[in-house]
Amino acid sequence: MIPLELHPDRLFPSDPATRSLARSLYATVQDLPIVSPHGHTDPQWFADDAPFPDSSSLLIVPDHYVFRMLYSQGVGLDELGVLPRPDASVSASGAGRHDPRAIWRTFATRYHLFRGTPTRLWLDHAFNTVFGIDERLTPESADRYFDRIEACLQEPAFRPRALFERFNIEVIATTESPLDPLSHHRRIRESGWKGRVLTAYRPDPVVDPQFEGFAGNVAQLGALTGEDTATWGGYLAAHRARRAFFRAMGATSTDHGHPTARTLDLGAAECQRLLDRALRGSVTAEEAESFRAQMLTEMARMSLDDGLVMQIHPGSFRNHNPQVHARFGRDKGADIPMRTDYVGALKPLLDRYGNERDFTLILFTLDETTYARELAPLAGHYPALRLGPPWWFHDSYQGMLRFLEQAIETAGFYNTVGFNDDTRAFLSIPARHDVWRRVACRFLATCVVEHRFGEDEAFELAPLLARDLAKAAYKL
Amino acid sequence: MIPLELHPDRLFPSDPATRSLARSLYATVQDLPIVSPHGHTDPQWFADDAPFPDSSSLLIVPDHYVFRMLYSQGVGLDELGVLPRPDASVSASGAGRHDPRAIWRTFATRYHLFRGTPTRLWLDHAFNTVFGIDERLTPESADRYFDRIEACLQEPAFRPRALFERFNIEVIATTESPLDPLSHHRRIRESGWKGRVLTAYRPDPVVDPQFEGFAGNVAQLGALTGEDTATWGGYLAAHRARRAFFRAMGATSTDHGHPTARTLDLGAAECQRLLDRALRGSVTAEEAESFRAQMLTEMARMSLDDGLVMQIHPGSFRNHNPQVHARFGRDKGADIPMRTDYVGALKPLLDRYGNERDFTLILFTLDETTYARELAPLAGHYPALRLGPPWWFHDSYQGMLRFLEQAIETAGFYNTVGFNDDTRAFLSIPARHDVWRRVACRFLATCVVEHRFGEDEAFELAPLLARDLAKAAYKL
Amino acid sequence: MIPLELHPDRLFPSDPATRSLARSLYATVQDLPIVSPHGHTDPQWFADDAPFPDSSSLLIVPDHYVFRMLYSQGVGLDELGVLPRPDASVSASGAGRHDPRAIWRTFATRYHLFRGTPTRLWLDHAFNTVFGIDERLTPESADRYFDRIEACLQEPAFRPRALFERFNIEVIATTESPLDPLSHHRRIRESGWKGRVLTAYRPDPVVDPQFEGFAGNVAQLGALTGEDTATWGGYLAAHRARRAFFRAMGATSTDHGHPTARTLDLGAAECQRLLDRALRGSVTAEEAESFRAQMLTEMARMSLDDGLVMQIHPGSFRNHNPQVHARFGRDKGADIPMRTDYVGALKPLLDRYGNERDFTLILFTLDETTYARELAPLAGHYPALRLGPPWWFHDSYQGMLRFLEQAIETAGFYNTVGFNDDTRAFLSIPARHDVWRRVACRFLATCVVEHRFGEDEAFELAPLLARDLAKAAYKL
Repeated sequence: MIPLELHPDRLFPSDPATRSLARSLYATVQDLPIVSPHGHTDPQWFADDAPFPDSSSLLIVPDHYVFRMLYSQGVGLDELGVLPRPDASVSASGAGRHDPRAIWRTFATRYHLFRGTPTRLWLDHAFNTVFGIDERLTPESADRYFDRIEACLQEPAFRPRALFERFNIEVIATTESPLDPLSHHRRIRESGWKGRVLTAYRPDPVVDPQFEGFAGNVAQLGALTGEDTATWGGYLAAHRARRAFFRAMGATSTDHGHPTARTLDLGAAECQRLLDRALRGSVTAEEAESFRAQMLTEMARMSLDDGLVMQIHPGSFRNHNPQVHARFGRDKGADIPMRTDYVGALKPLLDRYGNERDFTLILFTLDETTYARELAPLAGHYPALRLGPPWWFHDSYQGMLRFLEQAIETAGFYNTVGFNDDTRAFLSIPARHDVWRRVACRFLATCVVEHRFGEDEAFELAPLLARDLAKAAYKL
Repeated sequence: MIPLELHPDRLFPSDPATRSLARSLYATVQDLPIVSPHGHTDPQWFADDAPFPDSSSLLIVPDHYVFRMLYSQGVGLDELGVLPRPDASVSASGAGRHDPRAIWRTFATRYHLFRGTPTRLWLDHAFNTVFGIDERLTPESADRYFDRIEACLQEPAFRPRALFERFNIEVIATTESPLDPLSHHRRIRESGWKGRVLTAYRPDPVVDPQFEGFAGNVAQLGALTGEDTATWGGYLAAHRARRAFFRAMGATSTDHGHPTARTLDLGAAECQRLLDRALRGSVTAEEAESFRAQMLTEMARMSLDDGLVMQIHPGSFRNHNPQVHARFGRDKGADIPMRTDYVGALKPLLDRYGNERDFTLILFTLDETTYARELAPLAGHYPALRLGPPWWFHDSYQGMLRFLEQAIETAGFYNTVGFNDDTRAFLSIPARHDVWRRVACRFLATCVVEHRFGEDEAFELAPLLARDLAKAAYKL
Repeated sequence: MIPLELHPDRLFPSDPATRSLARSLYATVQDLPIVSPHGHTDPQWFADDAPFPDSSSLLIVPDHYVFRMLYSQGVGLDELGVLPRPDASVSASGAGRHDPRAIWRTFATRYHLFRGTPTRLWLDHAFNTVFGIDERLTPESADRYFDRIEACLQEPAFRPRALFERFNIEVIATTESPLDPLSHHRRIRESGWKGRVLTAYRPDPVVDPQFEGFAGNVAQLGALTGEDTATWGGYLAAHRARRAFFRAMGATSTDHGHPTARTLDLGAAECQRLLDRALRGSVTAEEAESFRAQMLTEMARMSLDDGLVMQIHPGSFRNHNPQVHARFGRDKGADIPMRTDYVGALKPLLDRYGNERDFTLILFTLDETTYARELAPLAGHYPALRLGPPWWFHDSYQGMLRFLEQAIETAGFYNTVGFNDDTRAFLSIPARHDVWRRVACRFLATCVVEHRFGEDEAFELAPLLARDLAKAAYKL
């Protein structure tokens, strides 16, 4: 048996002076409550508070970081319990069978593949701190792991709400479509449980003409709001109505997952024309892009009115692998980052609303080359802009260091918004915030040890980065 | 009161062996005279040698690094004393009022915003070494700062020439339009003062058809030189004449601030056609780009004749914020870097003059992705090319490290040109050179400690990077 | 005399804890045999086993890293013994004369130019370990160097096969055109010498319509194989035949040096049309690109059948300098990296073969921005993809660190393929592998010291990175 221990100095640099200060800084933030202003956890967990079914369903099947790596090394997604999409034309071999222990063994046998990845850090953290496991996951320990986790999941202490409390989550935001009735959120509120679970307005299904079922979605949006969403005015009014409903249910933000950061500021007639074509399903790719681009500007306009903080998460080539998409659907580890422009793309929106002090637009990127070249210079000028933390593939130890090293010199700390975990993997949340807090403290310690600013200032910045910038930026 | 001290080891790594060697290397270059071969200081300062008016006018109003950060955090430019442009259609609130102490307090209250930025390093350096202040700038110390600086500025020791001498500036270049009569430079020369202040030929107003007042500028160029600048031949002859005048006034270089690094090598007929359209104001954006591109090649050709070193500073999206531009004009912190291509863009010019040993073209970039991919490989091959130092947003501690780490392995040290401060903020000049010298020594020390080359070689390279490569490359 | 010593801790960080562990890790891999799965050494060396002619011919004339740097600093290529191309319209001054000692002195006088470059590390390594020289190369020591190297080259111990054995090369792959009869490889095999020298299939001359002599090359391919290469079917069959021949001669891989990573998946009629136009020499640049793109997909298809591992080395703008090309030909240090897209470019090929477990496509890049943004996410998903090591300008100390820091977090170690030296400079091979092994061990040591994974795991990974991943990926 190989011991699993989370070293108290992990992710701190080896240099003794820097490590020592990083440790002191971290000591002041490690126990701060978690503010998770953006992510994809399932509100039903907290509404139902039912036990998580099994270790594979909890830790492997829903975690695209995990199964994409295993898939890259020759493991079929069906061997991992990923279900084929209901309408898959090709039946997945082994579909229907779900043998959690077999899946777990498949995973454990290949745990070495995750060496050097953030997934390894997150999982070890969860194994140790959530399940109290003190040996490393290996083929040999796989069954002991499985049995231990299964046993735990039967306990009340491992139900969603208990974990939420144990994780010391002060507030968490989920992400829902405008078409979502938010019934889980309503049940959470009505339950009397004091955990703070908010929604966020993510209108991709009704603003992206290339989204599956767009026309039907827009019609449904009309039905929900009593607006004629076939007219540009009615369509916008329907958004306003749903945003108001989301706000009433606690939302403080919207989120937009477009392929690019393109924005436009078109006249109403052109907007109506694009909407017409989009609803008829006859838009070209370029028109679809224009429609999405226009909608970012519309969303900014509405944010100025209703105060919802706006987020853009652009630059992912979704469903790059058509075979995987045809068989297993979206979000199966086949989304690939693309080069992303911000300077030209955001200009129409910024020309309109970039100088507003009462509007906040938080920018994310999958293209790290934009940190120093575009994003930090933009955020260091426009009052409306703030920089989101390293995202997705860059939500990692080195990714965070690169962000801090490349963005802070031009944007400063105060044009950033601390951390987002942005995950659907519930158990990774404490680990992800812990990695961020450690890396942020390490960065601050390095600044102090190299006399770039004072130690007192680092102690002031540490809790801002760990929690308070996020709370403020997202109005939580 | 929080002490302000410039730690003797600032910007050196914490590792004792590396720090110790960095310190030894730095000791050999810290007092070398400053060679500032490219920048934007105002020659009138040195011609008039009048006292600087007040601390805000000296340190805040003209420093776009300072006011862009404050603006990004909700402070209006008029609150900072930035004057509206004379022709601004919208009158700026508070325009006309200039209360230096109020501006200073606004700034001091937000000095924490600059934590982690080079501006903080530069300002602290100036506060301490120029004004002898030994406490940190805080809201509480704001008035003491203001009073101290105001008092200093009354003293003869704080006039431009005295500071020039105190800063140990061996030579500084300013940057002027071909239309500038260089009267300030003439007065400096005729004054008998021994400070060496040179001009540089920056023809953007007469080579960029999209520059405000282009046709008038070109007509004025004709008037100044007695050439018919409506003909391609006359237009080029006028450039030659003004370059000769600038050279006679001490210029050793030209500088070109184009949106891209695009060059062309067109026939004379096409050039005449583009000039015609440019003067008529009927160029398309593409034709304007072609005209600028052609002019880079023409400037290279003239440099071969007259020996002026050529610089290209491409890649800035100028005046990105139309509201700020309409109200306050150019250079108000709203210029944003863009992705920049060199490999294709420079080819027409390099095809002609890249192999010349008697021509020097110094390349700058705002797109760090080009350091290792394009610029170092180009400079490591073409005899005419040299790499300028990290520029603007990248003239920073981490920016310099990235430049050295990404460019030197392919370009070597000898295809670089040491440091440029490129600033209009006079008091930041010693600080900027100090940051460069420290980072360069740190880089050299790391190379030695990791046994990439010998300690004797690092001691040979340190003064080259600090001063001598710049002197040689700019023929100073 | 300045001593030349290869410090045992070179390239290890100064921090004592990290250095100590890096040293221990390196001790376990430093003497592992060299697996060189991709490169450009000349098989004739090993077939003839004749002495290398002289130090300049061995170390300078064939090494584009060396002469590009000297050229960038004003040394003519003819001064360095680079021969003009036979058909050069302009006769090179000094052509015909080859004075090795004069060349060596020219080089030695400028050896300081290589400070901070990998060339310096490689050459010092060769000087010391191959020739036993213990003083630094300087103008003063130039003649002693020259004499020593000349004397050595007369010795049997310095013949190609002896050096191959002394370098402890387990296997090396060269790279040949499909038109190559592989006679050198045949002679090596028939000689009874046990050195393992394999070929690799590099079809650029017959798949790139813009390659010099394309139509003739394709006709020759037809003649060699008895296929009608004017028909699409015959052309493909000819490839299959040559691949089979290469496999019979030991090849385990193909290699493709296209300008971009573009792939296509066209119908047979369109392929025939493109082939027709290519053979007629009437292709547009776009059609040439389409032909190459299609051929990558064809090569992937053939690899699935015959098991050859496929490599793509895209992104070099070849022969950027037309004057150098006209006078001296290809591979003269004037190839410049370009921005490279993979996400869109590879999609047609990946749509077809990306999910195959029995097909391996190894991706290289000259555009480091793609490591974290495109390549690691692609390789961390598609079963067919693996990441090649840092290449060409990035085969350097910092380049390797950047690769490891940017790619591993998403791709993991097991989606990489260890090291390639990819060189035609035979004497640099041990040095290059040594640099890689040191940097890899340094990276692993840092991971352990910062508690990102266990020390036992680093000791498991070190030999994988040093040799075993390459052996496995290339089926050696």
